[in-house]
Amino acid sequence: MTRRLLAEAIGSFFLFACVIGSGVMGAALSGGNDAVALLGNTVATGAILAVLIAMLGPVSGAHFNPAVTLAFRLKGEISTVESAAFIVVQIVAGIAGVWAAHIMFDLPVLQYSMKARTGAGQWLGEFIATFGLVLTILGTIRVNKSWVPASVGLYISAAYWFTSSTSFANPAITIARSLSNTFAGIAPADVIGFVAAQLVGAICAVLIIKPLYGEE
Amino acid sequence: MTRRLLAEAIGSFFLFACVIGSGVMGAALSGGNDAVALLGNTVATGAILAVLIAMLGPVSGAHFNPAVTLAFRLKGEISTVESAAFIVVQIVAGIAGVWAAHIMFDLPVLQYSMKARTGAGQWLGEFIATFGLVLTILGTIRVNKSWVPASVGLYISAAYWFTSSTSFANPAITIARSLSNTFAGIAPADVIGFVAAQLVGAICAVLIIKPLYGEE
Amino acid sequence: MTRRLLAEAIGSFFLFACVIGSGVMGAALSGGNDAVALLGNTVATGAILAVLIAMLGPVSGAHFNPAVTLAFRLKGEISTVESAAFIVVQIVAGIAGVWAAHIMFDLPVLQYSMKARTGAGQWLGEFIATFGLVLTILGTIRVNKSWVPASVGLYISAAYWFTSSTSFANPAITIARSLSNTFAGIAPADVIGFVAAQLVGAICAVLIIKPLYGEE
Amino acid sequence: MTRRLLAEAIGSFFLFACVIGSGVMGAALSGGNDAVALLGNTVATGAILAVLIAMLGPVSGAHFNPAVTLAFRLKGEISTVESAAFIVVQIVAGIAGVWAAHIMFDLPVLQYSMKARTGAGQWLGEFIATFGLVLTILGTIRVNKSWVPASVGLYISAAYWFTSSTSFANPAITIARSLSNTFAGIAPADVIGFVAAQLVGAICAVLIIKPLYGEE
Repeated sequence: MTRRLLAEAIGSFFLFACVIGSGVMGAALSGGNDAVALLGNTVATGAILAVLIAMLGPVSGAHFNPAVTLAFRLKGEISTVESAAFIVVQIVAGIAGVWAAHIMFDLPVLQYSMKARTGAGQWLGEFIATFGLVLTILGTIRVNKSWVPASVGLYISAAYWFTSSTSFANPAITIARSLSNTFAGIAPADVIGFVAAQLVGAICAVLIIKPLYGEE
Repeated sequence: MTRRLLAEAIGSFFLFACVIGSGVMGAALSGGNDAVALLGNTVATGAILAVLIAMLGPVSGAHFNPAVTLAFRLKGEISTVESAAFIVVQIVAGIAGVWAAHIMFDLPVLQYSMKARTGAGQWLGEFIATFGLVLTILGTIRVNKSWVPASVGLYISAAYWFTSSTSFANPAITIARSLSNTFAGIAPADVIGFVAAQLVGAICAVLIIKPLYGEE
Repeated sequence: MTRRLLAEAIGSFFLFACVIGSGVMGAALSGGNDAVALLGNTVATGAILAVLIAMLGPVSGAHFNPAVTLAFRLKGEISTVESAAFIVVQIVAGIAGVWAAHIMFDLPVLQYSMKARTGAGQWLGEFIATFGLVLTILGTIRVNKSWVPASVGLYISAAYWFTSSTSFANPAITIARSLSNTFAGIAPADVIGFVAAQLVGAICAVLIIKPLYGEE
Repeated sequence: MTRRLLAEAIGSFFLFACVIGSGVMGAALSGGNDAVALLGNTVATGAILAVLIAMLGPVSGAHFNPAVTLAFRLKGEISTVESAAFIVVQIVAGIAGVWAAHIMFDLPVLQYSMKARTGAGQWLGEFIATFGLVLTILGTIRVNKSWVPASVGLYISAAYWFTSSTSFANPAITIARSLSNTFAGIAPADVIGFVAAQLVGAICAVLIIKPLYGEE
């Protein structure tokens, strides 16, 4: 289990550092054109996801996301104990990634986001985003396994643009992003709404797999 | 057939929600620079297409497009009854995707586009765009099957830019986009011209397959 | 041979229509920010190249480029007669693609570019661009054949940015672009310098294959 | 060994010409919007890396980077003598690439950068960037070898955005970029700090491979 936790730690660290860091870079350089900043944020996040899944997927499954770990738990492919350990590691290493991004960009390490992200529209966005993410992972594993790294990177690249919430789709990253008052941040008070929507989305995706793909 | 229709429904929902949603996001953030908005729209649409085809292609063929269903009907690879069911599902689930995008972005659900898209230049654009799309699908299936998800996503990414109509290339999405007064919309009165050009393009692509690739 | 010439015609038509059309679209929408226009032009051209090569490569080799046909002629993999036919088709169908782009965008069909592209820097650019393109094709076929469609699309995406000439790297497209007074055009008087540099680049690439990869 | 050195020379030439050339192009066209310039720089660099690795990897391993050569030396997969030759070739051919970019863009060949890049934040950036790069290479070779060209290109695309230093991650390119007073340059006095951080990052990546992937 040590190697699997190490893989989750490294992957979450790089993923979360990339989400925050590329947001800071985009906002700093784009002269106020947020679409350009989001393009940079998108290219970076989609790319690192594909890289990390190709490299770490064979070790730990490359979850980096409690919603994904929950989905595999519901499918019985990971134990409750290991699920809990995965989720702790994802949050802790992810926050370390956020702090590393702050240090790299000479920002204060400890921050709290003041960016409001709330309301029914954004919650629907997080529900749809996470439903689609978990469906992409479970479905692609079933029918086109070698596509998984590309599909997850591409899915998130799309979802950054088609959801009003820019698609966090990950409870650990939602928590971690509340600790960064930068482009990709979210106010701590708004975390709970996002996480709830994400977990419901993940559960619905698990439920639809059998009607869609039939018995395994 | 239920699983196949479910796949078409899920795929059309996500595809159309992505087309509309990423258009809204792009227009909202780009400060009036429509090329930047179109870049975001392109990245999102191309990415989600590849993801959906990799994930749902083995279930239903991943049409999400009446012009593609028509092409497979003409080639005798799908029955008339199932074709009709596919097309109904594509339109209904696609419109649901458009409405979901509106709700996510806190826009009125029911809208009609006021964006004029008409004239011989744009009709030629839709003819070429759909001819190329169907040719890409049928040709790549013949000679390079594992490339189909990537090729369709990349083809549409290119066609968004090289046609004056930004390449709808899909009668269902043309209908659905008429119900959205946003970046990706089309006035209802202009739908018929686009759809006619698309269907002619699809038929021509089916006709050129044999001269180009020889007998199967 | 008919099927092979048809493949070259379709590919050259779409490639050249895409180069011109996406240039027009980029320039029209980017509000004078040429880097954004070039990004759109790059995404579209790189994407369509990969699509066309995946789809038509198994039929004709997917040259769409007299410099590439010359390279295969020098390697003895295509006859002189067929090479000549390929080059005629590439130019004629490519010009048809340029004109189709003009019609799609409601521009005058017959145009001559007034965009000066000349000087030692740009000629070196075309030499390096074409040397790299032919090396990419011949080398990747040798050691990583399934990567050819992706590699050529990605190579041109890079070369649009790292050469001062934005990397035409194709005598047929150089001629065709002289017939378009748009973003991607080149003044007719400047064609000869570009084509000469391209042919020298292609020949040098053929010469370096054996020292680099050894005997076949 | 000659073929391997030739591969390193060609790859380093194109990679470094691309880094500098696309930076010049981006800065020249982006009207002062550095995020747009960085997007062009990113697309070009990520693309050429994937192409060069797919094409030259089977010949030399496609290092183009002393930090990568060091990593393979530490793993005992390359001799000390050949490592030294690789590094000399990477620096010499890479500088030739930088100068070629200058000539292509009609800039003075001999330049020294005046762009300060220093401080703990950027050194941490270079440490993380190079640690991640070497881990990506060694890890992906272990578990997903066919993904190596894509992964390295995507990794650098992400790292350009998520590190404050825009991720040089390569001692040879750091030296070469000090000879270019353009978008991608670095002042000569700042080279040593970057190179030190890069080498430490590479060594740490080699050390973590066994705990992460187990014995080979």
